[in-house]
Amino acid sequence: MQQRTIINNVAILDHERTITCGHIKISNGTITEVSDAPFVASSSHLEQDVVHNYEGKLLMPGLVNTHMHMPMSILRGVSDDLPLDRWLKEVIWPLEGKMTREMARAGIGLSLIESIRSGTTAFSDMYHLAREDAHELAVASGLKAQLTRGMITAFSNEQENEQKLQQASEFAKAMNDDSTGRLRGALFPHATYTNSLSFLYRVRDVAEREQLDVQIHIAETEKEVKEHVQQFGKRPVEHLLAEEIIGKGSLLVHSVHVTDDELEQMHEASVNVSHNPQSNLKLGSGIAPVEKMVDQGIVVSLGTDSAASNNTLDVFTEMRQAAMLHKGTSKRAEAITADDAFKMATVNGNKSIGFHKSGLIKEGYDADFILLDVSAPHLQPYRNRVGTVVYAANKNDVTDVYVNGQAVMQNRVIVTLDEEKLLFEANRAQQELLGIHV
Amino acid sequence: MQQRTIINNVAILDHERTITCGHIKISNGTITEVSDAPFVASSSHLEQDVVHNYEGKLLMPGLVNTHMHMPMSILRGVSDDLPLDRWLKEVIWPLEGKMTREMARAGIGLSLIESIRSGTTAFSDMYHLAREDAHELAVASGLKAQLTRGMITAFSNEQENEQKLQQASEFAKAMNDDSTGRLRGALFPHATYTNSLSFLYRVRDVAEREQLDVQIHIAETEKEVKEHVQQFGKRPVEHLLAEEIIGKGSLLVHSVHVTDDELEQMHEASVNVSHNPQSNLKLGSGIAPVEKMVDQGIVVSLGTDSAASNNTLDVFTEMRQAAMLHKGTSKRAEAITADDAFKMATVNGNKSIGFHKSGLIKEGYDADFILLDVSAPHLQPYRNRVGTVVYAANKNDVTDVYVNGQAVMQNRVIVTLDEEKLLFEANRAQQELLGIHV
Repeated sequence: MQQRTIINNVAILDHERTITCGHIKISNGTITEVSDAPFVASSSHLEQDVVHNYEGKLLMPGLVNTHMHMPMSILRGVSDDLPLDRWLKEVIWPLEGKMTREMARAGIGLSLIESIRSGTTAFSDMYHLAREDAHELAVASGLKAQLTRGMITAFSNEQENEQKLQQASEFAKAMNDDSTGRLRGALFPHATYTNSLSFLYRVRDVAEREQLDVQIHIAETEKEVKEHVQQFGKRPVEHLLAEEIIGKGSLLVHSVHVTDDELEQMHEASVNVSHNPQSNLKLGSGIAPVEKMVDQGIVVSLGTDSAASNNTLDVFTEMRQAAMLHKGTSKRAEAITADDAFKMATVNGNKSIGFHKSGLIKEGYDADFILLDVSAPHLQPYRNRVGTVVYAANKNDVTDVYVNGQAVMQNRVIVTLDEEKLLFEANRAQQELLGIHV
Repeated sequence: MQQRTIINNVAILDHERTITCGHIKISNGTITEVSDAPFVASSSHLEQDVVHNYEGKLLMPGLVNTHMHMPMSILRGVSDDLPLDRWLKEVIWPLEGKMTREMARAGIGLSLIESIRSGTTAFSDMYHLAREDAHELAVASGLKAQLTRGMITAFSNEQENEQKLQQASEFAKAMNDDSTGRLRGALFPHATYTNSLSFLYRVRDVAEREQLDVQIHIAETEKEVKEHVQQFGKRPVEHLLAEEIIGKGSLLVHSVHVTDDELEQMHEASVNVSHNPQSNLKLGSGIAPVEKMVDQGIVVSLGTDSAASNNTLDVFTEMRQAAMLHKGTSKRAEAITADDAFKMATVNGNKSIGFHKSGLIKEGYDADFILLDVSAPHLQPYRNRVGTVVYAANKNDVTDVYVNGQAVMQNRVIVTLDEEKLLFEANRAQQELLGIHV
C-alpha cells in the first residue's frame, strides 16, 4: 500500500478557497484530499502514514518564477542605475565574456538556494553556459524547472549558429524526456535584436518539427520597438506573430511596449506573458499594460529576471509589485487585485512553463506547496486571506517547501542542497570574475 | 570618566562613505569616532569600555518612517483594493468610530514592534486617539518619535474644534519638552477636505505663536485637487503656501499631484515632502513627481502610511520602491538612484521630523544605527555598497537596533518592549473591533 503523507493543523489558501484550520493528504506526489478540519487518526488511519503537524502555519501553493538567468546571480550588485542598453554593453556582456562554466555553475547553485528560501517551487531559466550543470543541480534541488539553452546569434557565423540551435533543440528534448518528470524544455532565442529574422525562421521550423515551445525577450524597451519598426516596418510582437515564429504556448518575456491591437492578437494566438515588473522598472524599460492583458484573458505570470537587474530572485516582491504598480499607473485601486497577482504567481506560472497540474491546493494536483510561519509582527493581526500573502508576507516567512510531496526545505533548513558550500562558491566565483584577490 | 561603547569588526556605510571592516566609538549617546580599521585594545583602552564584536555584520544608519498612523495597524488586512475615498468612507472611518483607546493602544504597541524589527530608529505618527499611550510606549520603546494629535474638524462644532486644537498644541509642546530628548511634536490638521479654511488659519496662528511645525496630508488624489480648485480657485499646495498655512519646516505628506510651479514654490518655501510610494500606489492615488522634487532640491523622505493601506510598516520596501518606481515612469534607469533613495530613508527622514544630528555614521552624530546580518543568500555575492542595501536587503536582515547608543533590539530580540504580549493584544483588539468571537 502506498505511503501517505498528511500535513495537519494548517491554514490553507489558494486563489480558489481558504481554510482556517485543516489538513491535506498526499500520495505518490499528488494531493489526494483537502479537508477543512484537522486530521484525527481513526480506524481508516494507516500505520505507515506520516503525519506532520504544522500548527500555526499557512499552507499555500509554491510560487513560480517564469523568467530568470541563474548564472547571472554571481553578477548581483556589480552595477546599478544604468539603462538596459548601456548596462548590457558596458557591464554585463564584457563580464559574461569572461564567465567560465565553473562560475556559471556557482551562479546556478546560488540561484537555487535563493529560490528555495523565497518559496519558489517551479521556475524557468535561460542561459547559454553550464546547461548540464543546470540540469544536474535542478534535479538535485528537488524543484520543478524549465531549463533552456539561450541563443544569441547576431555575432557568430552561420555554422556556429546552426550548432547553437542544434544544442538548444537537443537540450530541450532531453528536458522534456527527463526521467524525474520535473523538467521541461523550450527554445529560447534571446531577442529580435540579437538574432536575424532568418535565424528566427529556423527556430520556428525546429520548434514545429520537434514540438517545442518558444520563448523570447520581446518589446522590452521603446528603443527595441522603434528600431524593429525602422528595419521591418512592423512592431516586434505583431511581426513575430504574423510570421508564426511565436504562437500557441509561446512565452513572451517582458512585453512592455505592446499596442491594444497587439494585445488582441496575442490573445487570439494564445501566447502567454512573463511580466517582470521590477526588472522593467529598474532598467528604466517602462511598465507593461498588465491590466489590459488580464482583461484580454492573456495568461500572465511573473518573473524576476536575473539577480543582476532586480537584485533578488524573490517572487513575493514581484507579486506585491504587480498588485501595487498597476493601481498607481491607472489611478484605480481595483486594477490588478491581490487575487489577480496571486494567480499570476501560482497557477498561471505553472501553466506557462508546462506544469499543468500544479498551483492549486486541490485533489489531483501535484503536491507543490510552501508553509509560512504567520506569527511575525508584519502579519498581525493575522487574517487568512490572499491579501495577507500579497501585501504583507515576504519570503522570510517561508519555512517549508515541498515539490511533488517531497521536502525541499524543512523548518528553514534546505534538505536537498549544501547551502553553505554553494554560497561560498558563489562569492568566490564573483571574486574570480572581477579579479578581486582576497 | 564616561563609559564608551565600541562596535567592532563591522562593515560600515552611510550615503557619504563605505568602510569594509572598521569600528565606531560611542560616548554619551553620540558617535565619537569612526574608524576604517578594527579596534585593538591598547594602553589608551579604558577598562570600563564595552566592546561588542559583530564580525560579518553591516552597520548603517537606522531607517526613518516620516509618516504613519500607529493605531491603524490593528486594521491591517481588513480591506484591500479600494480607492482612498471609498476605503475611508466605507471601511476605515466606520471602524475607527468604534475604536476604543485600548484598541488604539494595542495598535501602537504592534506598530512599535514591527518598526523596530524593520530597522526603524525614528518615526512620525499622526492620530487622534491614545496620544498619552503613544507617548508612554514611544518612550518605553527607546525609538525617536515625532508624535502628533491629528485634527479632523469638518464634522464637529466650533467649540469641539477649538478643544482639538488646544489639545494638539499642548501635546506638541509636551513632546518638544520631553525629558528624554527623543520626542518631537507638530500640529497635524488631517487635510484641506477635512478642515475648513478658517480652522487652518487658526492652526497657522497657533503654530506661529507656539513655534510649532505643521504637517498635512495634501495633494494625495486628483479628486482632492479638483474639488479644492472648484471651491477656492487654487490648487491645495499653492493655496496653503500663499496663505502661509504651510511654510519653512512643514512636512507635506503625499504631494502626488503638484505642478512644476508648485514644486518651485515648495522649494522656495523650504517645505519638506514625505513620499509614501506604496500607499499612493495601493490606493490608486498615483505616483508623486519625486525626481523633479529632488532636482528642485526639496528634502524628500519616506513614509509607509498606515499598515491598513500598505500593508506593512517597512521602510526597506519604501526605499526600494522609491529607487525602482521613478525609473519606470520616466523610462530612465538613472532616475532616483540607490544613493538618492538611501538618503531619503536616512538623513532626510531625520531632518524632516526634527532630528538634525542623526542619519550619518559620523563623529558628532547621534548613535542611531542598525546592524544587518549580510549572510543571507539574497545578499550573495556580498558587496558593501548602498545598492546592496536598497535593491537586495530587507527588514529580516536586521539583527540589532540602537538609538542614542542604547540597544533597542539585540541579536533579533527586542529588549525594550514585551513583544509577545503586544502581539497578543493587537490580535485581540482586532477581534473585538470586528466583533469576532474566538
